[in-house]
Amino acid sequence: MAPEPFSSPAQYLADRKALIDEVLNRFLPPCDTYPPIIYEAVRYSLFAGGKRIRPILCLAAAEATGKTAGGDLSAILQAACALEMIHTYSLIHDDLPALDNDDYRRGIPTSHKRFGEDIAILAGDALLTEAFKLLSDPGLSSSAKPEIRLEVINIIARAAGIGGMISGQVMDMKAEALKPEPNLVYFIHQKKTAELIQASVHTGAILAGAPAEELLALLKYGGKIGLCFQIADDILNAAGDEALLGKAAGSDLARGKATFPAVFGLEESRRIAETLVREAIESLGAFDCQAEPLRGIASFILTRKS
Amino acid sequence: MAPEPFSSPAQYLADRKALIDEVLNRFLPPCDTYPPIIYEAVRYSLFAGGKRIRPILCLAAAEATGKTAGGDLSAILQAACALEMIHTYSLIHDDLPALDNDDYRRGIPTSHKRFGEDIAILAGDALLTEAFKLLSDPGLSSSAKPEIRLEVINIIARAAGIGGMISGQVMDMKAEALKPEPNLVYFIHQKKTAELIQASVHTGAILAGAPAEELLALLKYGGKIGLCFQIADDILNAAGDEALLGKAAGSDLARGKATFPAVFGLEESRRIAETLVREAIESLGAFDCQAEPLRGIASFILTRKS
Repeated sequence: MAPEPFSSPAQYLADRKALIDEVLNRFLPPCDTYPPIIYEAVRYSLFAGGKRIRPILCLAAAEATGKTAGGDLSAILQAACALEMIHTYSLIHDDLPALDNDDYRRGIPTSHKRFGEDIAILAGDALLTEAFKLLSDPGLSSSAKPEIRLEVINIIARAAGIGGMISGQVMDMKAEALKPEPNLVYFIHQKKTAELIQASVHTGAILAGAPAEELLALLKYGGKIGLCFQIADDILNAAGDEALLGKAAGSDLARGKATFPAVFGLEESRRIAETLVREAIESLGAFDCQAEPLRGIASFILTRKS
Repeated sequence: MAPEPFSSPAQYLADRKALIDEVLNRFLPPCDTYPPIIYEAVRYSLFAGGKRIRPILCLAAAEATGKTAGGDLSAILQAACALEMIHTYSLIHDDLPALDNDDYRRGIPTSHKRFGEDIAILAGDALLTEAFKLLSDPGLSSSAKPEIRLEVINIIARAAGIGGMISGQVMDMKAEALKPEPNLVYFIHQKKTAELIQASVHTGAILAGAPAEELLALLKYGGKIGLCFQIADDILNAAGDEALLGKAAGSDLARGKATFPAVFGLEESRRIAETLVREAIESLGAFDCQAEPLRGIASFILTRKS
């Protein structure tokens, strides 16, 4: 279970993605569990080729503390997988006809196109619930104390809940009828994306037992790259390569979505994203080479093509 | 916070419902929280006049153990409210056009008729997530140990998750195209309804510290009345008074739903339900008068008109 040490950002991301995929696969019942259609639907979206940024950030934040070397990663991997389940649920529901009405994601039909709207809604509900089942599972050998596990559940539920991701989604929908303005787009990106990414870093840090000062630095890092991640997504949607994206480029603009390019223009959006990455890396100043993966991920967010 | 002692089932249900409503109201942010539409939608469905059977069962199971008298009910009320949030989320999603496509529930427009499908989907997601946020809230003075709170989260997530309520919902949808058969209708009712009702009794019992033998008896009670509750619902749908139901009667039959009346006929369904109630009450044989509320609720399930 001990993952490879850090060599390069690309290698680190590939290695940790393989680890997350393996653990996710182990946590989920097989496709022939009754009734098979819902297990198929859950696995279809969960294994559709996601980059696993949130779970990898959870692992990388834990590794940055230097307290996980040779230790039991089970509680951290558990939280990491739960974060990916919640992210996947949010994509399935976001793609529904009543929301963004997207036919493709990552180059393949969205859940409702493949399984029907009823199953897509229930598959999202299932992934959200499974995340909390996993986080509270008594059967998994968990190295974390019950009070820390409760704290992790609360951090993730707050980030994903009505005061977090949900209100971001609500305003993302409602903003289509509004003039895109800086306050609005910052609110949406903060809530819709940044808070769950920050929660990923947060949970990794507290599960590894990060001391208060390191935790604060990691939270700052997480907030910056969380926001940057969504701005980079906006930039890719506005100016990216459709073949690499696996979905239509320019769709945000066509829908009148509140995005950074719509509010600030492409060039200024890139400048804001670069500043956020620089500040994120600066906030890790007190960490040694064990924070290299976090630094590499921050740079990757800006240079990724899909 | 100390609730009234037991006098009659009707009085007990009314009193505990008032208590649950008060605590739910306290746990939820006000309607003018930004963005208001999602807080309105969540409150609209949560305060639409539900009977609060699940949270009341959680309280009544705790009271049956005799360990709560004069004690701190905060952890039990927290779990009780979380159960109602999960039940309400399931109703909002179940009513959606892609699922049961219901325009009315409890005599008022369903969430998607009132707020639109996008907000209804997100309001359901929000309630499900808020339930787990509430169960893990560190700010609430909770009388339960962290390991018991984790166990409560796991019990509820299992009952509501892919191996529980979700698979019941899936087969409830898919059964419309299948011949109603005993095994199928038992599976659907067990998963869709009985497991969350049993989990309500289960969480109340373990939060009150029920010893193993009492816990087993309470679980047996919970399983029986959980199944009975859905059969009684079927019977009401088939033969109930629309004005009292707040929705169209006979709709299950028109849709080809797998219900007990469709499989066994009305008379035999009533007989099965009566047997379940009798067995549920019998399973409480070792409890004294503190289990009177549980006995009263079992009888109420069969005699209710809405």
